[in-house]
Amino acid sequence: MTTLKGRDILGIGDLSVAEMAEVLELGAQLKSGERSPHCKKVLGLLFYKASTRTRVSFSVAMYQLGGQVIDLNPSVTQVGRGEPITDTARVLDRYLDILAVRTFKQSDLETFANYADIPIINALSDLEHPCQILADFMTIQECFGQVSGITATYLGDGNNVAHSLILGGALMGMKIRVATPKTYQPDPMIIEKAKQLAVEGFEIIVTDDPIAAVEGSQVLYTDVWASMGQEDLAESRIPIFEPYQVNDNLLSHADKDAIVLHCLPAHRGEEITDGVIEGKQSKVWDQAENRMHAQKALMVSLLGVV
Amino acid sequence: MTTLKGRDILGIGDLSVAEMAEVLELGAQLKSGERSPHCKKVLGLLFYKASTRTRVSFSVAMYQLGGQVIDLNPSVTQVGRGEPITDTARVLDRYLDILAVRTFKQSDLETFANYADIPIINALSDLEHPCQILADFMTIQECFGQVSGITATYLGDGNNVAHSLILGGALMGMKIRVATPKTYQPDPMIIEKAKQLAVEGFEIIVTDDPIAAVEGSQVLYTDVWASMGQEDLAESRIPIFEPYQVNDNLLSHADKDAIVLHCLPAHRGEEITDGVIEGKQSKVWDQAENRMHAQKALMVSLLGVV
Amino acid sequence: MTTLKGRDILGIGDLSVAEMAEVLELGAQLKSGERSPHCKKVLGLLFYKASTRTRVSFSVAMYQLGGQVIDLNPSVTQVGRGEPITDTARVLDRYLDILAVRTFKQSDLETFANYADIPIINALSDLEHPCQILADFMTIQECFGQVSGITATYLGDGNNVAHSLILGGALMGMKIRVATPKTYQPDPMIIEKAKQLAVEGFEIIVTDDPIAAVEGSQVLYTDVWASMGQEDLAESRIPIFEPYQVNDNLLSHADKDAIVLHCLPAHRGEEITDGVIEGKQSKVWDQAENRMHAQKALMVSLLGVV
Repeated sequence: MTTLKGRDILGIGDLSVAEMAEVLELGAQLKSGERSPHCKKVLGLLFYKASTRTRVSFSVAMYQLGGQVIDLNPSVTQVGRGEPITDTARVLDRYLDILAVRTFKQSDLETFANYADIPIINALSDLEHPCQILADFMTIQECFGQVSGITATYLGDGNNVAHSLILGGALMGMKIRVATPKTYQPDPMIIEKAKQLAVEGFEIIVTDDPIAAVEGSQVLYTDVWASMGQEDLAESRIPIFEPYQVNDNLLSHADKDAIVLHCLPAHRGEEITDGVIEGKQSKVWDQAENRMHAQKALMVSLLGVV
Repeated sequence: MTTLKGRDILGIGDLSVAEMAEVLELGAQLKSGERSPHCKKVLGLLFYKASTRTRVSFSVAMYQLGGQVIDLNPSVTQVGRGEPITDTARVLDRYLDILAVRTFKQSDLETFANYADIPIINALSDLEHPCQILADFMTIQECFGQVSGITATYLGDGNNVAHSLILGGALMGMKIRVATPKTYQPDPMIIEKAKQLAVEGFEIIVTDDPIAAVEGSQVLYTDVWASMGQEDLAESRIPIFEPYQVNDNLLSHADKDAIVLHCLPAHRGEEITDGVIEGKQSKVWDQAENRMHAQKALMVSLLGVV
Repeated sequence: MTTLKGRDILGIGDLSVAEMAEVLELGAQLKSGERSPHCKKVLGLLFYKASTRTRVSFSVAMYQLGGQVIDLNPSVTQVGRGEPITDTARVLDRYLDILAVRTFKQSDLETFANYADIPIINALSDLEHPCQILADFMTIQECFGQVSGITATYLGDGNNVAHSLILGGALMGMKIRVATPKTYQPDPMIIEKAKQLAVEGFEIIVTDDPIAAVEGSQVLYTDVWASMGQEDLAESRIPIFEPYQVNDNLLSHADKDAIVLHCLPAHRGEEITDGVIEGKQSKVWDQAENRMHAQKALMVSLLGVV
């Protein structure tokens, strides 16, 4: 198995097609116990936004590897006191072995990557959420035995998760459909980049018609309509996004064996109904668990301790 | 030794008489070094209220076992953003091995227990504080060689600590006296439950006469008059609770070998005088240390790694 | 090698001349890997002020030793709720193996030391910053092969860092020059104490003439003009401190092989220019890394696990 030793993962497109497949395979082996690598490394978590799943799943992943974690919550560090990222990055580089950053601006991640030699992982930015998509693909693999060729529909806000799904789908040759209100479509640059990265079989449809988008789809995927930092917009967005709610009616248009994904936290009655998230097609808890395995696979590979 | 593997401890009454005795014995063995179990488990601490003793004592206990701890301070997690407990519980269940929760509402603990398979420990709720009482009983055992048959008087606010003392006293056959202002008595449901759980020898007196309550008593136990979340009531309660202060005069009415307990933090000059807490009958620092040993015993048993 | 087992380090003067030399030597050995001691101890970090470098460098140092760290941020502990330090100290003493405290008042550190048996380390107070100076001396040693006899100039605010530099310089027989505005000179008590501690070769000059102070100097050292807690004074101090800025002109008066130190975070354009901190004479990143090695050396010695 090749490793990603010393690399940075700022977006899902930083992985090649073969590397993506290897990380997913490694994640499955770590989950099953077929591989159980060990390392005494120190992971830093620098999260400018709140997090349960990401923080806990990264921490437990590193603890199970035998390593340690430092939580660099900006509220208790100098980072919150206006020290330039170029300085913080160079100092942390001297102390840590690997750093996961959750930030608003993608450019901050690039600064960290440029000024630190240790691997930098995007733990969510306004542009991308690559760790989430690795977990999603592990879940799809578990349910369908493969990722390539699968038809997956993303419904709601064309946000960071949608971006990483599109790019990841391109690498895996998926049929991706994105149904969003017209002014909430994914960044056209992402679509462009996906087409450049794409392997054979990749298809991408962006539409404002949710019913058409889920017709025969095998994966229905949604996320909150207002991301972190946009909570004040949540109320006003409800009427705009309401047609994109994942409910029983929408689900009835999908493939009969379709699974439902949500990266959590979920707002029941908004982007998803209680009936659907608690229903038998929902795989959201497996998906959440897979965050841990996927991130462990990524860290193991970036640290070169496979 | 039987274990509590996979169980939840939401209140002291979740232990049987035999199990309580075993946890106390195991705590003593861990303290003396007679047993030193090892495990690589991950403990989550989800504390909705501030804590020094509980957080540090749980953390060090798990570190000494060889495990890891994740501090799930709601201010930095989604928990603070209104995610339902049913979802948080199911996600944490996928990542953690055991979870201690400090919360206002007992019903939140029950929700955690219902939605997570991992053991849930009540690390203090408005209703009960079972970990505290295990530490207290370890301290009583160290001082008197036994817990059953001991006369213990609780003075002050009939709060969560008083509740767990009453229930624990019922399990151990203690003579419990509670002296509180008339409108601050323990919940009558707790008294009722104690009588149901009680073994032979258990006696319970609830009174508003502090002198009568300490007459010949072997343990004087008090707590702050206004618990966390009630700080704005502290000033107005002083005249009401003043007769229940543990001071030299009150202590002179107790058994001459009586010990003084306080679960800390203490407000000198309110529920206890400086002279008494710093005096030779005070066992409050041993009691604080025993939090660590008692909780380690509880975790070892719940994780089945005795 | 002698150890400092069980001692407290509240100021750099708590080390004897021989002990200081040994800690620096041990730091170098830990950095090179010549020694790699192991221990399963638990370090507490009680920081009343924000910190990146100190918190991360202490944590990684302890993790590399095989131990654990508990972050006792006062915002999430009882410490913030007015519990007297005498009580907090006695409780933490029962749980932890060693405690680093960052506080405003030096007298708080003394209270911790008096009430806890475990080693207490000053992780920065208003009076001193001994861990910083150990890292600085490691850096000077790396650059010049020795510390004693070196001429070092501190420019800016006569603060805690200046104090520890003066006292440490006295122990190592350095030629220390301090250039500050007249009303921002170091505490005269520190100068007095330095003269008492001093070994042969120690010289101390305090002046308000920055050019004279750097003439031929081998180390130029500066710090922010307004320390933590004084941020509201920052603006008004700029014109007062401006002549003490470490810039190319000032640097041209120093020894041609002079190095530049800064304990970070740096405010470019205030106490140091971007050109100087990013220039080839700047050793600030090595200096930051040495915090970790120096503190590891100190902990190893205080815990007696050399």
